[in-house]
Amino acid sequence: MIDAILDEALICHVGFSIEGQPFVIPTIHARDGDVLYIHGSPGSRMLRSLRSGVDTCVTVTLLDGLVLARSVYNHSMNYRSVVVVGRAGEVTDPQEKLRAMRCVVEHILTGRWEDARQPSEKEIKATTILALALTEASAKIRSGPPTDDEDDVGLPVWAGVIPLALQTADPLPDDGVSSSPPSYVAEYERPRA
Amino acid sequence: MIDAILDEALICHVGFSIEGQPFVIPTIHARDGDVLYIHGSPGSRMLRSLRSGVDTCVTVTLLDGLVLARSVYNHSMNYRSVVVVGRAGEVTDPQEKLRAMRCVVEHILTGRWEDARQPSEKEIKATTILALALTEASAKIRSGPPTDDEDDVGLPVWAGVIPLALQTADPLPDDGVSSSPPSYVAEYERPRA
Repeated sequence: MIDAILDEALICHVGFSIEGQPFVIPTIHARDGDVLYIHGSPGSRMLRSLRSGVDTCVTVTLLDGLVLARSVYNHSMNYRSVVVVGRAGEVTDPQEKLRAMRCVVEHILTGRWEDARQPSEKEIKATTILALALTEASAKIRSGPPTDDEDDVGLPVWAGVIPLALQTADPLPDDGVSSSPPSYVAEYERPRA
Repeated sequence: MIDAILDEALICHVGFSIEGQPFVIPTIHARDGDVLYIHGSPGSRMLRSLRSGVDTCVTVTLLDGLVLARSVYNHSMNYRSVVVVGRAGEVTDPQEKLRAMRCVVEHILTGRWEDARQPSEKEIKATTILALALTEASAKIRSGPPTDDEDDVGLPVWAGVIPLALQTADPLPDDGVSSSPPSYVAEYERPRA
């Protein structure tokens, strides 16, 4: 279940502390077996911090629905989340880096790697990838209908679930693109784990 | 823009450190003017930590699209995120607590508070609400088409954006609910800021 949640999520939130101040930064990830690769572009502060091998926490959350109970108190959300703690290290071997970059791209959009212009040596160098072992990871899931107190079940209040899911709209071609989108773009859907 | 992103997002990720180990936990929030209320149910560890007044970071991210450049290197995502840092304190005054609970519920689903069974004194006591001033908050946004290197623009690779948005499906009534959902449920849509 941990793997499936990590694989379905498009982004993760990376937590780290600098001089006692916690930071939480959204970024892209990909799982390769028991390793979580984290793409290091969004903030050099994050990079500098994680690179040096500090403790981190990477959290992924998928929102599945709003849970409407008869009482305000029992309202909830359906979700699936994974929390990974550990010490992230920088990937420096160019071959592993390239493999990790491929993982990240294919995780987001299967089929894209072969189609797009491959990274040059300079681009590989300019990309930072961190690796975090999935040894300390836990999943938390809430699903299903609301749970109301017995005394509330008879109340004339509508109760149930509003399902939520990340959906795609028709792809928007860039200026100068006249070809139809490839099938992996046209038929893109986030697979539900 | 900061306010609009916080108001559109259904969940936030709260970061805090315990003895040097960062944690990132998803939870529900609501903005009331210049204050961000954080609902404190998901983990007592988070509560105990924030309650004591430690430094925290609350991050909200909205995913708007996958950005497909001609080169792998220039792939990106369209998103809007807000990072708030500060020191969260527990809301203890029952009147402010009730107002914060109302804010959270109405933030998620406008119209629900009046309709559902209101919290009892006991339930208010059993709910933990934290307040974080929005004094140190920043927004980061990426939007629009891919940015390719000049040399790549002529490549025969489809480029563009796959738009993404959180969508609702038809509400699922709980067992024993025979009435139609109220309009704020039937017509629920997350307002795009």
